[in-house]
Amino acid sequence: MHPAHQTKDQRVCARRDQIVDASRLCFRKHGFHGAGMAEIAKMSQLSVGQIYRYFVNKDAIIEEIVRRIVFKKIQIMTGGAHNLKQMASNLAHRVIGAQNVDHSQIQCPELSPEQNEIDHALMLEVTAEATRNPVVAKILRDAESKLFNEAKAMLTPYYPNMPEEELKARLEMLAVLCEGTAFRRLAHKHADSEILKTVYNQVFTKVFSDYSPLHTAEN
Amino acid sequence: MHPAHQTKDQRVCARRDQIVDASRLCFRKHGFHGAGMAEIAKMSQLSVGQIYRYFVNKDAIIEEIVRRIVFKKIQIMTGGAHNLKQMASNLAHRVIGAQNVDHSQIQCPELSPEQNEIDHALMLEVTAEATRNPVVAKILRDAESKLFNEAKAMLTPYYPNMPEEELKARLEMLAVLCEGTAFRRLAHKHADSEILKTVYNQVFTKVFSDYSPLHTAEN
Repeated sequence: MHPAHQTKDQRVCARRDQIVDASRLCFRKHGFHGAGMAEIAKMSQLSVGQIYRYFVNKDAIIEEIVRRIVFKKIQIMTGGAHNLKQMASNLAHRVIGAQNVDHSQIQCPELSPEQNEIDHALMLEVTAEATRNPVVAKILRDAESKLFNEAKAMLTPYYPNMPEEELKARLEMLAVLCEGTAFRRLAHKHADSEILKTVYNQVFTKVFSDYSPLHTAEN
Repeated sequence: MHPAHQTKDQRVCARRDQIVDASRLCFRKHGFHGAGMAEIAKMSQLSVGQIYRYFVNKDAIIEEIVRRIVFKKIQIMTGGAHNLKQMASNLAHRVIGAQNVDHSQIQCPELSPEQNEIDHALMLEVTAEATRNPVVAKILRDAESKLFNEAKAMLTPYYPNMPEEELKARLEMLAVLCEGTAFRRLAHKHADSEILKTVYNQVFTKVFSDYSPLHTAEN
């Protein structure tokens, strides 16, 4: 749409998108500390002053980047069915994020493998930054809590007999497996993926089947 | 020892230690991209020229930092007994690295919780850098392979009946759990640690006990 035909809100959103996209590239290329506001401005084709009209500082840009990545993760998660067999296979083959998503089912514009890789790299960058910057640590913690609670809400109907505390422990284990697998994706694949898949299937059967979920046949 | 009484090798080692220690602080403070050779030189109280006599570039310093962290991890791992109950407890309480190590048993000068935290943060930094720098990706991959193979050599005698490929899949799962737990250490603790410990114990019993290890009573 030509800028002249946009409402004020649409223009603000477009500018914020422009800055977020440029910042993703800058952080990706030089790391969070290596990328300054001047470079972000240059990449956005805006002035530094204009950037500050939309984001108070670099932390605020990070917050928006993390918010968007987590929003996508929630869309992907809630757009699919809870399927532990699929999860075992994805973990064993180091498929992370949206690589196995049926795009026809989920309205999410940025699900390409490239965007997925950039999301993963940016989350590593943000996590490293969180160890030295309490503001970024809080952004990350809040975003993760939102994701965890969405996952809990999604899983609860599948395990009507499981006490909440038991479900939370199993969800934490799944989260650890997903993040550990993502973290190790650059490591050499020592294990045979099919054997690893069998191990994960044993694990999931062991810790989830005790509570006679409604949908065990599929999981 | 006064420099005048050191051999040439001792002087080289002392200089390299000095540069590595300063670089750790610089990378920790400003990230890998934010810390330049000039700053590392200043922090080391050496000239930039002197730094280049000991390390050809920043990647070489990273390589040495990663090598030392992995060496410590191997010392800690091989200094202790294979104990899955302890591992379940450590994972559930997010105890990573050397926090529960009996220092009297292991000769390793840098095992304080602070050094442990710095090691963890540096590994996040290096992993983020590895997504954009193939030299650093190779450093990380080689170091991880060394660690994995040491772990395999350590575990093999405990599971004499387990085929190597089965052991490697289980080791990969343990590595994923360790790295995922470390990665999530800034996240809110949603799960009760005691319940999570029980879940991990169930998992370990399930996937390790099929092969009647020699030491199941203790594990």
